[in-house]
Amino acid sequence: MAKQTFVLAPDSFKESMTAKEVCIAIEKGLRKSFPEANYLHVPMADGGEGTVQSLVDATGGRMFEKEVTGPLGNQVTAKFGIMGDGTTAAIEMASASGIHYVTKDTKNPMITTTYGTGELIRECLDQGIKKIIMGIGGSATNDGGTGMAEALGAKFLDQKGKTLSRGGGNLGRLHTIDVAELDPRLQEVEIVVACDVTNPLCGENGASHVFGPQKGATPEMVLQLDNNLAHYAEVVKTVLNKDIRNVPGAGAAGGLGAGLLIFTKSTLQRGIDIIIQYTGLREKLAGADYCFTGEGGMDFQTKFGKTPYGVAKVAKEKGIPVIALAGYIGEGVEVLYEEGINAIFGIVPGAQEIEKLLADGPRNVERTSENIGRLLSLKI
Amino acid sequence: MAKQTFVLAPDSFKESMTAKEVCIAIEKGLRKSFPEANYLHVPMADGGEGTVQSLVDATGGRMFEKEVTGPLGNQVTAKFGIMGDGTTAAIEMASASGIHYVTKDTKNPMITTTYGTGELIRECLDQGIKKIIMGIGGSATNDGGTGMAEALGAKFLDQKGKTLSRGGGNLGRLHTIDVAELDPRLQEVEIVVACDVTNPLCGENGASHVFGPQKGATPEMVLQLDNNLAHYAEVVKTVLNKDIRNVPGAGAAGGLGAGLLIFTKSTLQRGIDIIIQYTGLREKLAGADYCFTGEGGMDFQTKFGKTPYGVAKVAKEKGIPVIALAGYIGEGVEVLYEEGINAIFGIVPGAQEIEKLLADGPRNVERTSENIGRLLSLKI
Repeated sequence: MAKQTFVLAPDSFKESMTAKEVCIAIEKGLRKSFPEANYLHVPMADGGEGTVQSLVDATGGRMFEKEVTGPLGNQVTAKFGIMGDGTTAAIEMASASGIHYVTKDTKNPMITTTYGTGELIRECLDQGIKKIIMGIGGSATNDGGTGMAEALGAKFLDQKGKTLSRGGGNLGRLHTIDVAELDPRLQEVEIVVACDVTNPLCGENGASHVFGPQKGATPEMVLQLDNNLAHYAEVVKTVLNKDIRNVPGAGAAGGLGAGLLIFTKSTLQRGIDIIIQYTGLREKLAGADYCFTGEGGMDFQTKFGKTPYGVAKVAKEKGIPVIALAGYIGEGVEVLYEEGINAIFGIVPGAQEIEKLLADGPRNVERTSENIGRLLSLKI
Repeated sequence: MAKQTFVLAPDSFKESMTAKEVCIAIEKGLRKSFPEANYLHVPMADGGEGTVQSLVDATGGRMFEKEVTGPLGNQVTAKFGIMGDGTTAAIEMASASGIHYVTKDTKNPMITTTYGTGELIRECLDQGIKKIIMGIGGSATNDGGTGMAEALGAKFLDQKGKTLSRGGGNLGRLHTIDVAELDPRLQEVEIVVACDVTNPLCGENGASHVFGPQKGATPEMVLQLDNNLAHYAEVVKTVLNKDIRNVPGAGAAGGLGAGLLIFTKSTLQRGIDIIIQYTGLREKLAGADYCFTGEGGMDFQTKFGKTPYGVAKVAKEKGIPVIALAGYIGEGVEVLYEEGINAIFGIVPGAQEIEKLLADGPRNVERTSENIGRLLSLKI
């Protein structure tokens, strides 16, 4: 038998394993049947949680930490990554401005700010970064990305020329925006935003109505936040001559999508497509015999841009069989068979507590992969 | 591709599916990839719970019910089966005299009796049965099979010639045994006892010491029960000229093993071997491409005579790959790879309540089998 090549391209299994750890466990299992095979680890993500870690792991990059301003104004330790090429950074906005920094009692999208996300971008500029991949899921904010812009030198002023307090609740008093001191290095940096939603900035389908409530907005707050973002868009149009009001995705991350489009050289792209590009998945699949993917949970929603779906699309182009692993297999998972996923196996060994299952992730992935390898190696 | 033949030979998944139901679910799953294949259903068992149902299902036989005397003397409805040949019966002693008929408060091996098991045998004699396969797991009794023998005409008498009360606690007063009225038809019937234990009737490794406590015996009771069985063996030796005291397996089912050897034409055999023989598994495997097996739970103990192990041994002789499914995969399951099981897959889709997992057994087996079929049908 010729040397087999296995491309291992799973997402992370949330709260259990990073994507890289999943790769290692799959290889361990398969090696028992295919000791001489090639194993290419391509830790994946879809723009959501784990994106930075996977991009760093897939490219041989490095993680960094930076003290920044959290969504409520207090200091938090954010992480970001610089990829193997040394000039591309990966940021998750949630690491600076995420919902996990607020509690049931403190969550308040009237005051939460993306300022820390701007500080992370500034840190990248200081390090000479030329391109930033940004994941924007899990935000605690509804400030239209104004905090982010302020951290990079923009000034949001009221009628008296006084800087507004941070937070989407104050944007109703926005009179003008001063970008004279906006960091000029931003013009040299391309920001690729991983964005899977198409929500506009305002209105019924806008940031405040759709995502405000889960960030703590009462119905009254939703109306005010939505009015404020509409006013913000007006001011932007008047002062900066940019009309982002109806751009799909402008409403992502409480309007951070809009802020990035206004103040930086940004493009919004589907998360999984970005990760496929920057991990070099397509190239690594060339000549592979099998592709393994997977995610903590898989169901009919996996089709909406999740990692196993994206990986399968690329593998299918090349006619490479795709085998998926999941910690949870939910309703409607069979729709994935038509999307290039040949088989899906659960890794759970039986009725067990979720805590034990999360802790045992690596051994369960290894055991399942071992048995898949044993099947694949059957000669009849 | 030539028409494939799949032999489906699982055990039951206890509290979830009979072996036959498992066969049906596996076929449903595989049919999606192999619509034209042959599927041979061979519902299996290992002599334990589900043995009668599987033998009946595997041979196209029929189940019967019979009101008999339960272990505590009250009436219970026992089931037994007559196999497809019409002359072989299958009995589980537990259906008449099982531990599930007693509670924490009523369990008492001093008084429990195998009388109902004898009544089942008598019913078989009445129906003209020539051979009985008997499973003896799960007994509530410790009476040396005296109740069983009494139901068939034997008399257990004290010094005054009075019939003893039933139960192992009374055997200390046994003076003689009168077999004059023992049913003569017993001599025409072969009883094949599925027995996986080698415990002798008495002593440290005997019925009372090893199995008495789980049937409710206190330490004092254990000593008395053991003494009583030793005395019983003495009387048997003196009166009937049979020495069963040290026969391996005589201590099975509270000494029912001994009783069967004394009063009937019985042989003790390993359960799985009996089932393999009477289901015709070996013959059905001839020419098969794959064999599927499985059990509710599989771990290192599966090697000690459980169904997937027995099935794999036979399939391995013929070089047929064996794929196993399990609701629970426990420690050390990998020892089975060397016993002829090529791959083992869990059917559980994720962290769920045991009640839901038991209820969803068929769909989880079907989904897992479907994905195995999808892997097997991959041509590379």
